[in-house]
Amino acid sequence: MINEIKGGVTAARGFAASCTAAGIKYKDRTDMAMVYSSVPCKTAGTYTKNVVKAAPVLWDRALTDGDKLVSAVVINAGIANACTGEEGFSYCKKTSDAVKEALNLKDSEVLVASTGVIGKQLPIEKIVAGTKVLAAKLSETTEAGEEASKAIMTTDTHNKQIAFEFEAGGKKCIIGGMCKGSGMIHPNMCTMLAFITTDVCIDKALMLKALREDIEDTFNMVSVDGDTSTNDSVMLLANGLAGNSEILEENSIDYANFKEALHGVTLFMAKNIAADGEGATKLFEVKVVNAADKAKAKILALSVIKSSLTKAAVYGNDANVGRIMCALGYSGVDFDPYNVDITISSENGCEQLVEKGVPLDFNEELATRILSGKAVTATCDMKEGKAEATAWGCDLTYDYVKINADYRS
Amino acid sequence: MINEIKGGVTAARGFAASCTAAGIKYKDRTDMAMVYSSVPCKTAGTYTKNVVKAAPVLWDRALTDGDKLVSAVVINAGIANACTGEEGFSYCKKTSDAVKEALNLKDSEVLVASTGVIGKQLPIEKIVAGTKVLAAKLSETTEAGEEASKAIMTTDTHNKQIAFEFEAGGKKCIIGGMCKGSGMIHPNMCTMLAFITTDVCIDKALMLKALREDIEDTFNMVSVDGDTSTNDSVMLLANGLAGNSEILEENSIDYANFKEALHGVTLFMAKNIAADGEGATKLFEVKVVNAADKAKAKILALSVIKSSLTKAAVYGNDANVGRIMCALGYSGVDFDPYNVDITISSENGCEQLVEKGVPLDFNEELATRILSGKAVTATCDMKEGKAEATAWGCDLTYDYVKINADYRS
Repeated sequence: MINEIKGGVTAARGFAASCTAAGIKYKDRTDMAMVYSSVPCKTAGTYTKNVVKAAPVLWDRALTDGDKLVSAVVINAGIANACTGEEGFSYCKKTSDAVKEALNLKDSEVLVASTGVIGKQLPIEKIVAGTKVLAAKLSETTEAGEEASKAIMTTDTHNKQIAFEFEAGGKKCIIGGMCKGSGMIHPNMCTMLAFITTDVCIDKALMLKALREDIEDTFNMVSVDGDTSTNDSVMLLANGLAGNSEILEENSIDYANFKEALHGVTLFMAKNIAADGEGATKLFEVKVVNAADKAKAKILALSVIKSSLTKAAVYGNDANVGRIMCALGYSGVDFDPYNVDITISSENGCEQLVEKGVPLDFNEELATRILSGKAVTATCDMKEGKAEATAWGCDLTYDYVKINADYRS
Repeated sequence: MINEIKGGVTAARGFAASCTAAGIKYKDRTDMAMVYSSVPCKTAGTYTKNVVKAAPVLWDRALTDGDKLVSAVVINAGIANACTGEEGFSYCKKTSDAVKEALNLKDSEVLVASTGVIGKQLPIEKIVAGTKVLAAKLSETTEAGEEASKAIMTTDTHNKQIAFEFEAGGKKCIIGGMCKGSGMIHPNMCTMLAFITTDVCIDKALMLKALREDIEDTFNMVSVDGDTSTNDSVMLLANGLAGNSEILEENSIDYANFKEALHGVTLFMAKNIAADGEGATKLFEVKVVNAADKAKAKILALSVIKSSLTKAAVYGNDANVGRIMCALGYSGVDFDPYNVDITISSENGCEQLVEKGVPLDFNEELATRILSGKAVTATCDMKEGKAEATAWGCDLTYDYVKINADYRS
């Protein structure tokens, strides 16, 4: 059992945060943030599978894959530090060195993360100067976490943070985090970044196992390609300050509780990143049920969620269900189209649109009302087995085009 | 050697066409067309790989896969006859029967094609009535072909037809055709339809071989998925009236000439369908050169051509070359990003944007001018081998969203 509590990245014991306006790209807003733990943390990370990896991804992966402990994460918005060659990678070290000096870190390391335009070098002097300000401003308050979650936004329309309490070894533990989203039609804009902090004491290998399994059903089910940006990163830091005896067993209640709490955080993040996709007016959720197996269910759900034509119809509140049938059909999964039922639902109601592959004479007015909701779900019943999967995305709007036709300027 | 000549689907000897306003969906425009050959034709066809296949696709595939000769094709715009079950399939037979009766066909068959909204039944009485008008109006004039190419449009902004002369066995042969395009961001709207007619005399198996090979580099390199609509069809009809001795050998000059002329037709169609993509303001072409092998070159080119973020940047004349690097990177092909050069060109000039994976300090003003051209090419030099591939698409615009947010009404 997990309970949602106030706060985000500073909710767990020992975690502090700060932010500053370093003048990297935006005017009149903060654009750098720091997360710090008073006790060095074990880490787990998952990163983009894009062949073109940003410099911070290479830097962080080497650290989280290794055994060294981490005390801080420093993040900038505005420039992605991707396609920047050796110079870009050297800036990761310069940034880390500056943080180490400012925080007087001896035996622990610093993760770095960047989000923004690809192919530009960081203004490293501003970044280094920013790290000093960030180190001086660190605070464990809820407000400090909240402000940090605002500083990492790019085209996000609002900040995203969440925290839960759970129990392990008789102790109350806390897990929380913050994230930023991206252009969600394809998640290949820099970047989806998520930072999750917990005070639970847990074996490093189990942390990674839990994270890897969890993202398959959350972050990797958001929008198109799941793994496309040059910078996508999810980082989990655990400092053990909850005082529970270390979680070492996969088949323990403590591990199950931890996984449930982690899932609470990542599910919130995935859905909120989707709903806040660039230009989006609503969350669009595709549930595939009774598929032959889980892998097929996922492919089918992702095929519909990434269909530009379906997304445009959802924007227009147009129950053009043929586009959903079509997107299922070109997913690459074989199935009998004359088995499929499709139902749409939202806070405004529920209506079946397709029975056995053929559109029904449904209530158009009700369908339009359902589609005009803030969170619209299309459920596709394949009637082939018992597997299911859910994918999250958003509608395709004029504003998506507007935002992306001239993102750099 | 091939020469472009006037006309389209009626250019080859013995082919006639007609059109009529049958009142299927649109007001004040034609929406049915017929193509007829005075001599029954051998046929070859390639169709959508979508699991959800429209009724006409099933009807036509059975015919073109078989040995029966075909005398006519009848086409309607407005309703796709997809997701229509047994009732929809029975309408293919009813339409074919009506054409056979109107044209007094005894030993030859009729192909049917539909394009438009998915999930609605055809108004079969109007279709049957339309076939009689079409049969009575058939004409071999250039104008009749031209008018037929207009009747099959849906969201196309202009009709598309082309014809070439070539030589086989010392005889002048002609190949021509008409096509209609579709929402090209994903080619999954109903539908891309192409009808190609020729008077050459050629073995049926060689016709199919030529068509199948050709579409791999033309229709299947247009936009995203290459094979996604429920209705996509390319049909080739040959009546042999050129009087050449039948082309039977794959390694003959005659077959090579036929292939070149066929490619002229399909390349024109592919590029024009891309350039007339829904809401498009320009043709976008992605050339991948010096790739490790042909398959990889194709995957890389298609990954860039389908990237919504790249397409939005092309619309905004924004040289956001990081998005092209990113789209290459998530294509699924492994390569060294620090080998890649990228150059853009159009009728307005040429400028290199990326060298060895890192953006150059390029001329922004010139880049914007190049991108504002009517036909923009991005050339990605992978420096890994000698293979190349080209993909065609268009920019992503406000009008794409507008057209597709309420396509049904």
